[in-house]
Amino acid sequence: MIERISILGTGLLGTSVGLALREAGFRGTITGWNRSSEQGQIALKLSAVDSLAIDGVEAAQASQVTVIAVPIFATLDWMEKLAPVLGPEQLVTDVGSTKRAISEAAARLYNTPERAAFLPGHPMAGKERGGAALADANLFRGAVWLFTDNSAAQRSPQGTLLTNNWRGLVSAMGANTLDLDPVRHDELVAWVSHLPQFTATALSALLEEEVGDAPELRDVGGRALREMTRLGASPYSMWRDIAHSNTEAIEKALLALEQHLAHLRENLRTPELKEEFERANKFRRE
Amino acid sequence: MIERISILGTGLLGTSVGLALREAGFRGTITGWNRSSEQGQIALKLSAVDSLAIDGVEAAQASQVTVIAVPIFATLDWMEKLAPVLGPEQLVTDVGSTKRAISEAAARLYNTPERAAFLPGHPMAGKERGGAALADANLFRGAVWLFTDNSAAQRSPQGTLLTNNWRGLVSAMGANTLDLDPVRHDELVAWVSHLPQFTATALSALLEEEVGDAPELRDVGGRALREMTRLGASPYSMWRDIAHSNTEAIEKALLALEQHLAHLRENLRTPELKEEFERANKFRRE
Repeated sequence: MIERISILGTGLLGTSVGLALREAGFRGTITGWNRSSEQGQIALKLSAVDSLAIDGVEAAQASQVTVIAVPIFATLDWMEKLAPVLGPEQLVTDVGSTKRAISEAAARLYNTPERAAFLPGHPMAGKERGGAALADANLFRGAVWLFTDNSAAQRSPQGTLLTNNWRGLVSAMGANTLDLDPVRHDELVAWVSHLPQFTATALSALLEEEVGDAPELRDVGGRALREMTRLGASPYSMWRDIAHSNTEAIEKALLALEQHLAHLRENLRTPELKEEFERANKFRRE
Repeated sequence: MIERISILGTGLLGTSVGLALREAGFRGTITGWNRSSEQGQIALKLSAVDSLAIDGVEAAQASQVTVIAVPIFATLDWMEKLAPVLGPEQLVTDVGSTKRAISEAAARLYNTPERAAFLPGHPMAGKERGGAALADANLFRGAVWLFTDNSAAQRSPQGTLLTNNWRGLVSAMGANTLDLDPVRHDELVAWVSHLPQFTATALSALLEEEVGDAPELRDVGGRALREMTRLGASPYSMWRDIAHSNTEAIEKALLALEQHLAHLRENLRTPELKEEFERANKFRRE
């Protein structure tokens, strides 16, 4: 039974994990840590965590499960820092959006009989703006929570048990779990997550140049424009690490979209436009 | 006072106009006509229209205001057909998504002291799927309803009065009206409406090729993917006329987006990525 959890990083995702754990009926202790005390205080006020730790390493040492909920490169730093000070009766997991580098570090630093277990995780949920204040107990309800657990073979028995229990808590938070190979994960999310984000960023940046100085014209677009640019509000601070840790797959996806747009542009008056609409309709079939 | 309205085309928009007129308190008669009797029957059943006409021309002749709610080229056909048989005490208006061709036809065929008035209109509202069954009395609430009334000068006094009364009804339906030059209108909607649509079509078609055969992978994308591809369901039948009647402006917008995407792709690991995110954030500032 998991009774002591710590959450390193009480931003939107970390704080939502705390709230969702409570909503799911988790009755143990939840300790929070955050680089800036302001976000930690908000998480505490929302009762997403029971207390705040001054030292994240000490919080992890006192926990059975540590959830790292910070950007990718900061996650890799925490993995290096925690591996030597945790033991085989402890589990570390994360919520990072790319998984190849994190799964490699998990295989290198964790998941031996003497070391802590590490379960690479990625809930496909979020908002276009970050921060603890926007946290939501239902953020993961109906969402897919991916795992790329490719180095589990040598894991300690206690680590395996904790891993299974954590998967149970993730399901109790309302998420649907799915296991993928880490390389396949990064290729897949380049298409279904990173490409939509970078498309919204490019479209929003372009429209800022074209109509940004005339707010009354921005309103003309209505719901379609609002939806297609909502992700334009996403923070660079998070997406920089994704761009750096999944560059090739994102380049490939962006180039493919550029080619589809050029094909549409060259065929606005030909029957090929119909075929492109039919392919798009098929993707959105009920 | 407007007491007799006919709606030619009882699809999503035409039927929604009927429902919104009733919601706004319009107590006169509303006659519907549709090419397929099935859509007309749905509009009748929803009480969006009081009766169905067999002949659209006769319905228009018996009305003070005729609302044409069909795709662009069919709208132009109706304009040709109605101009000779209507008089200066009648108004025709439309809901077409491009306005240059329609405004030119309005100047050529309508808006003289002897002829009917024509007010080119464009409500910035819709859904990704068409049809009377999806009609909504609140579709226009909070939306912008554009007018490109560039040939009003010679209009009959009765036509001017009807035009002002129709503008009042549009406001009563909850829309915010805005007047634009027709050429400027078509350039603007290429950016804020047509570009988002064709982007969603290209993205959806691309994703159909990449992950369409694995529905469980489509679900991975979550809300962001659903939003960015919702418009992928839009029907070719409507967008073909838009692509044909606003080709140059749409080509320009698509090319500009291709260039922004290529710029992003070439700068995934440079500080320029931050600047593109900041431009996008600025467009979505509160």
